[in-house]
Amino acid sequence: MAESLDEAYKKLMEKIKDFIIFQSAESVIHWDMETMMPPKAIQLRSQQLALLSRIEHKMGTDPEIGKLLKQIKQNPRYDKLNNVQKRNVYLTKKRYDEETKLPEELVVEIAKQQAIAVDVWKKAKASQNFAMFKQELEKMVELKKKAAEILMEVKRTTTPYDALIDIFEPKMTAKTITQVFDELRTGLVRLLKKCESSKKHPNTSVLKRKISVDTQRRIAKALAESVGYDTASKNAGGRIDETEHPFTTGYYDDVRITTHYYEDMFASSVFSVLHEAGHAIYEQDLKQDWMYQPVGSGCSSGFHESQSRFIENIIGRSREFWVYFLPKLKEITGKTFADVNLDNLVHAINQVKPSKIRVEADEITYCLHIVIRFNIERDLFADKIKVKELPEIWNQNYKEYIDIKIENDSEGVMQDTHWASGLFGYFPSYALGNVYSGQLLATMEKDLPNWRKQLEKGKFSPVKDWLIENVHSHGDLYDPPQLIKKITGKELNVKPYLNYLNEKYSELYDF
Amino acid sequence: MAESLDEAYKKLMEKIKDFIIFQSAESVIHWDMETMMPPKAIQLRSQQLALLSRIEHKMGTDPEIGKLLKQIKQNPRYDKLNNVQKRNVYLTKKRYDEETKLPEELVVEIAKQQAIAVDVWKKAKASQNFAMFKQELEKMVELKKKAAEILMEVKRTTTPYDALIDIFEPKMTAKTITQVFDELRTGLVRLLKKCESSKKHPNTSVLKRKISVDTQRRIAKALAESVGYDTASKNAGGRIDETEHPFTTGYYDDVRITTHYYEDMFASSVFSVLHEAGHAIYEQDLKQDWMYQPVGSGCSSGFHESQSRFIENIIGRSREFWVYFLPKLKEITGKTFADVNLDNLVHAINQVKPSKIRVEADEITYCLHIVIRFNIERDLFADKIKVKELPEIWNQNYKEYIDIKIENDSEGVMQDTHWASGLFGYFPSYALGNVYSGQLLATMEKDLPNWRKQLEKGKFSPVKDWLIENVHSHGDLYDPPQLIKKITGKELNVKPYLNYLNEKYSELYDF
Repeated sequence: MAESLDEAYKKLMEKIKDFIIFQSAESVIHWDMETMMPPKAIQLRSQQLALLSRIEHKMGTDPEIGKLLKQIKQNPRYDKLNNVQKRNVYLTKKRYDEETKLPEELVVEIAKQQAIAVDVWKKAKASQNFAMFKQELEKMVELKKKAAEILMEVKRTTTPYDALIDIFEPKMTAKTITQVFDELRTGLVRLLKKCESSKKHPNTSVLKRKISVDTQRRIAKALAESVGYDTASKNAGGRIDETEHPFTTGYYDDVRITTHYYEDMFASSVFSVLHEAGHAIYEQDLKQDWMYQPVGSGCSSGFHESQSRFIENIIGRSREFWVYFLPKLKEITGKTFADVNLDNLVHAINQVKPSKIRVEADEITYCLHIVIRFNIERDLFADKIKVKELPEIWNQNYKEYIDIKIENDSEGVMQDTHWASGLFGYFPSYALGNVYSGQLLATMEKDLPNWRKQLEKGKFSPVKDWLIENVHSHGDLYDPPQLIKKITGKELNVKPYLNYLNEKYSELYDF
Repeated sequence: MAESLDEAYKKLMEKIKDFIIFQSAESVIHWDMETMMPPKAIQLRSQQLALLSRIEHKMGTDPEIGKLLKQIKQNPRYDKLNNVQKRNVYLTKKRYDEETKLPEELVVEIAKQQAIAVDVWKKAKASQNFAMFKQELEKMVELKKKAAEILMEVKRTTTPYDALIDIFEPKMTAKTITQVFDELRTGLVRLLKKCESSKKHPNTSVLKRKISVDTQRRIAKALAESVGYDTASKNAGGRIDETEHPFTTGYYDDVRITTHYYEDMFASSVFSVLHEAGHAIYEQDLKQDWMYQPVGSGCSSGFHESQSRFIENIIGRSREFWVYFLPKLKEITGKTFADVNLDNLVHAINQVKPSKIRVEADEITYCLHIVIRFNIERDLFADKIKVKELPEIWNQNYKEYIDIKIENDSEGVMQDTHWASGLFGYFPSYALGNVYSGQLLATMEKDLPNWRKQLEKGKFSPVKDWLIENVHSHGDLYDPPQLIKKITGKELNVKPYLNYLNEKYSELYDF
């Protein structure tokens, strides 16, 4: 009997290893499409991707996996498996159940509607015409509701929307998020008002100084290396390439980030590189022993975002980082920044200024954008609001939360691609990541009281080592609620993040 | 009955389409490994490649393909299929039979021995020690003999070595090649002596002028575009990347070439770019209707080489090309070539000078290198010579054919990677390509008597259109012996190539 459990587990892990390797190969093909592929190849590439995803689906739903899972779960010696093995079995079963329960026709229909809706969304956005987009979005919402109702059973959530959230943030619920986001919103609105009523405001003209793309590439390398994303050594693991929308992709020893360079907005690439490097080092620092196993992966979208936002904001927008990096920046750029003053630069990159567009938002208003989207999604999937009402509700919320008037739906409800792509339940992760990052910071400060002083000297390794030990090395061994408790000893809690913001911005804005 | 033939054919082509698309995706992964992959990722990449080749093998040997082939071939209405359909069935059956007849253990053993032999070859080459390599090469030859004996039956050749040749040059035999190569050798040796005894020799110092890598990249683009390999337009199909050994890879709308840049040898990238562009435009110009079908492919390794050598040498080393391109080169390089004289440059890039290393050989001696390798392979597989005798035979041949003394085996029998990789039967294609190119040129000159004058003005499109119509558009519809006859009206014939060389070099060397 003992042998049969071990054997079944070994066989299962061999199947999963192939599945994971296959996915990692697919990600290379995706990366190539975004970065390197000649434009003419798009038709061929979509054929390749369709075939690969068919093969992936076949591998992932192989009935042999179901059989092995049953053998393992029903084996009387199941409890002899260690925690990592049990988690591997759990994660495999979860993915397998979800993938096998969703009818293939529905999956295909969603994929098709995705292509249509994104296409129509682009046109509707270009012509500021929500009416044009409405019908396709309605269809998409209906299809996702169908999928969510099926996933509800597998995931055992109490609402369809919770099933969607669970895809990105396992075991998180709209109920918990609502509580946390209400508190987050109140705190952020208060901070926003304090910053706005301050007399001290930064001069941001320094951010508009022209830096050539070549020079920005050198800055990007230096930044990435400074937080441990290796692009230059003989055995380097990283690349930085160029795409319109920055992203991170890859697996273990082959993780790659992208950025974009605008000559008159150098800060855009600076913070996108730091953000993506935060995602990248998470993936690169996963336990080597867990390679090719389900546990060898990041914990959740929210935890991933906690790492990217930690590096981008808590590190990258800190005064201490620029004590170290400003001289480097001056060295790389020659005369351009020779006269720049540290305090002004630090305030400029932390300017608080309400804006209509989420991806351009500052640290204080960013999560308000997310809260708005979450509330809308939740109510939409609870049938409390209808697609046709979205623009009105959107604009009301922006007025109320951020005090900003949306002039047209292209800078309003149609600004993000997520909903057209059927990505419902994903937005909350963006804000949860920030909340986690605040809790991580508070815990780290107890372990490393001198981290800011060391950062001033360019010593980032204590922080990185702390992140590896406390976050990265746990891989996907725990669900997010367990992991945050394991690391910080506390449940999900918005206070540390608000404290961090309060401390930082009261200094910057003098309140 | 009619329906069942059509249906079976349609089903077969659907299976083959997936197989071809899968291979094209694999080639992206290979390309990425050579050009973009961070060094650290090599272990992961070898896992990906091993998995993909397992899947490819499974797809390619799917018993359903065998069943469909039988249904089609045995259908009484088989003759109703048109020529393209019949050729698709023929090519599918040929590949399927070969792949299913070779025992998997033998394929695995060869792959393993390949890895070992290449590794040992590298070390043996570095230490100039053939004795170290001998045993692994012996094993490799034995394994390839086994494979060749099995393939002999499927391919119905009279010798094992012919079965290996058939992989790269279908329907070509060692007997025919021997006849052709004997005549080729006699002609080349005569030409070589004439050039060597001439009083007119080029000053090649111009080829050593330093050109920065960045400038060479611009030259490479201009060269590639000048022969119709599009890298720059909005809907471009091509890329030029950098690898130690230049190569061409890809499929239809996604064909990519690579080159290498040496600051003090700009001509190296010039001719490698033209060579690879020759391969690339062949692939890019295949009939669009034949995409995803077996006929939608180049005819053979030799025909591929005929296109690359045509562009590299007949076009790229012609006086007329440089009438057009030298002013461009001067424009791109600023002062570096301002004083360069056309006649001297043209002679310098066509300098005839016996050398030990095949890949550095000029147009006259290049094929002599190939003839030596072919003779050795043929006798080795006919058990007339033994692996341990290779160095001695090699060195004798170099003395006799090229009048050059090989000082050690690293610059002799161990210079190429082919044999360590088990690539027997491949070398002849290199010389056959040149022979074909001569026949193509002679035929083209009848159709386009003014092509040289037009080339002087940078008008390459008549030549390209001729190549498309006469070579590229036939894809893999014919075996090489048929194709050369179809295009030129003649069997394989070495005279046109020798005539071309004679005409060109008698002018350059004044004999």
